[in-house]
Amino acid sequence: MASHWEEFYSTHLPPTDFEDNRKLLKEFCERHHKTNQRIVLITSGGTTVPLEHNTVRFVDNFSAGTRGAASAEYFLEHDYMVIFLHRLKSLEPFTRHFTGQMFLDMLELNDRGPSTTITVKPDCVDIVAPILARYKNAQEGGRILYVTFTSVSDYFWLLRAACECLAAFQSNALLYLAAAVSDFYIPSSEMPTHKIQSQNGAPTISLQLVPKLLAPLVNLWVPHAYVVSFKLETDESILIAKARDSINKYKHKLVIGNILQSRRYRVVFVTPQSNYEVVLTRDQMLNGMEIEDSIVANVVDSHSDFISNLQY
Amino acid sequence: MASHWEEFYSTHLPPTDFEDNRKLLKEFCERHHKTNQRIVLITSGGTTVPLEHNTVRFVDNFSAGTRGAASAEYFLEHDYMVIFLHRLKSLEPFTRHFTGQMFLDMLELNDRGPSTTITVKPDCVDIVAPILARYKNAQEGGRILYVTFTSVSDYFWLLRAACECLAAFQSNALLYLAAAVSDFYIPSSEMPTHKIQSQNGAPTISLQLVPKLLAPLVNLWVPHAYVVSFKLETDESILIAKARDSINKYKHKLVIGNILQSRRYRVVFVTPQSNYEVVLTRDQMLNGMEIEDSIVANVVDSHSDFISNLQY
Repeated sequence: MASHWEEFYSTHLPPTDFEDNRKLLKEFCERHHKTNQRIVLITSGGTTVPLEHNTVRFVDNFSAGTRGAASAEYFLEHDYMVIFLHRLKSLEPFTRHFTGQMFLDMLELNDRGPSTTITVKPDCVDIVAPILARYKNAQEGGRILYVTFTSVSDYFWLLRAACECLAAFQSNALLYLAAAVSDFYIPSSEMPTHKIQSQNGAPTISLQLVPKLLAPLVNLWVPHAYVVSFKLETDESILIAKARDSINKYKHKLVIGNILQSRRYRVVFVTPQSNYEVVLTRDQMLNGMEIEDSIVANVVDSHSDFISNLQY
Repeated sequence: MASHWEEFYSTHLPPTDFEDNRKLLKEFCERHHKTNQRIVLITSGGTTVPLEHNTVRFVDNFSAGTRGAASAEYFLEHDYMVIFLHRLKSLEPFTRHFTGQMFLDMLELNDRGPSTTITVKPDCVDIVAPILARYKNAQEGGRILYVTFTSVSDYFWLLRAACECLAAFQSNALLYLAAAVSDFYIPSSEMPTHKIQSQNGAPTISLQLVPKLLAPLVNLWVPHAYVVSFKLETDESILIAKARDSINKYKHKLVIGNILQSRRYRVVFVTPQSNYEVVLTRDQMLNGMEIEDSIVANVVDSHSDFISNLQY
């Protein structure tokens, strides 16, 4: 049985930097609420489940954070303010375009002693300039706030704190829950203090179900917001049924379903009324278009409809 | 019981890009063997243990890869050729100095239409220039080879392939095994195909012991090389005993022991004859010195002694 969400909070301490992050969230939300902006909370990347208190090993969820990081850029283009709540070291908007050694390979060193300069190679400028311009624009406008989590318990605390700040935005708030949250965890009380020793033989790990936060989130924390959740499966045959179960159970607005193997070019939007696919054509892929461009455009339209319908 | 290492190879397929990597390793080693260079294989970062064939969840080992990435830079300074066998997306030499948004924050956009340029801000040049110079020097001299793994089974295949190429270097080869390798795994035959479903309740995961590769590595694959392994614990009281057990069992040259909480400023070198600490003083830390500088200097000295002693 899943433990109740209130029990989870009462048995797991908040992360050490929790109060700092709560202050940042509060400041960011209050500033943008004054000017009546639309705001999106994007969760991105996988959460970990530690197997030891002094954590050497943990269970992780596969997620580079591509969906969330790319979506953040598109939401900024649609004039949303963005809270980017992501797994530490998962992909981030803008920097995601420069992974590995790309950055150092793009630089040219003009060694002239004390007047040494370093420039981006001319043939890379066309790629870097527009990304850099959009990055600086978002930074200077204070339009994006980065907050990080690692464990599922960090995520629980930060998600609730973000919701508490977002509630004031009512229907102007969009929640885009793309993080890959662990379904299972080891209760604090059953976790060993030190690294599990292998000479004692291989351990058997008994997991518990993580409580689903969608229930209190939709009903209690942000009851007027537009809430979108994601569902990832590897088995095509159960995806839509599982997405529909979720929307029936939690009564939020939209589930975006995707299959691990095809998630870069095909997703399915499941609403209480219908379901439809958003796909990237072969031509669009070859032109470097990303499916998150279409996903975000669709979500923004639905959010606009939702806001308009409330007004009549 | 640990399965035998040969059984592990016979029941786990090589990674899909295995032959490409083997070719790169062979070419790199043959080129540097001709000129009688010293060479180090550094393993770095944690290995994963998938819980499903279509992997959504996996057990991971805590390791950002700092030790291995920093050490690679120091080995290059000591004129070693470097094979950097590391976990995909773990820290890498040189780029490790520019994490997160540092890189974009350092750049200045001079927007002049078609003659737009991008430069590193003058006050960042002093930091970037020496790192960039060392990076380009290593790249242009073909002195470092990057190879990546994700799962423990990828690591097994690549480690053995690297050893097969290193054997020719005899005592000029140094193995610096800093990767955090899983002790436990789920045999392929007991792994479900699809994502484990949470409505069936929380699963119990039964793990098996991963065979220790140090045994065949020391005895069969690179019997004349200087082999260094690492041991990470969280419990100070068992560290030295465990390091000594390891060196007695596998008969290699050196175990570097470290405690999770103090690993950035204190390690213990355990040899068959003795043990001694390598520590970073408070002053050295404040001056930005890294403990890997001292660790590598010590290891290089020991490797030199080892080579000299063989000649008399």
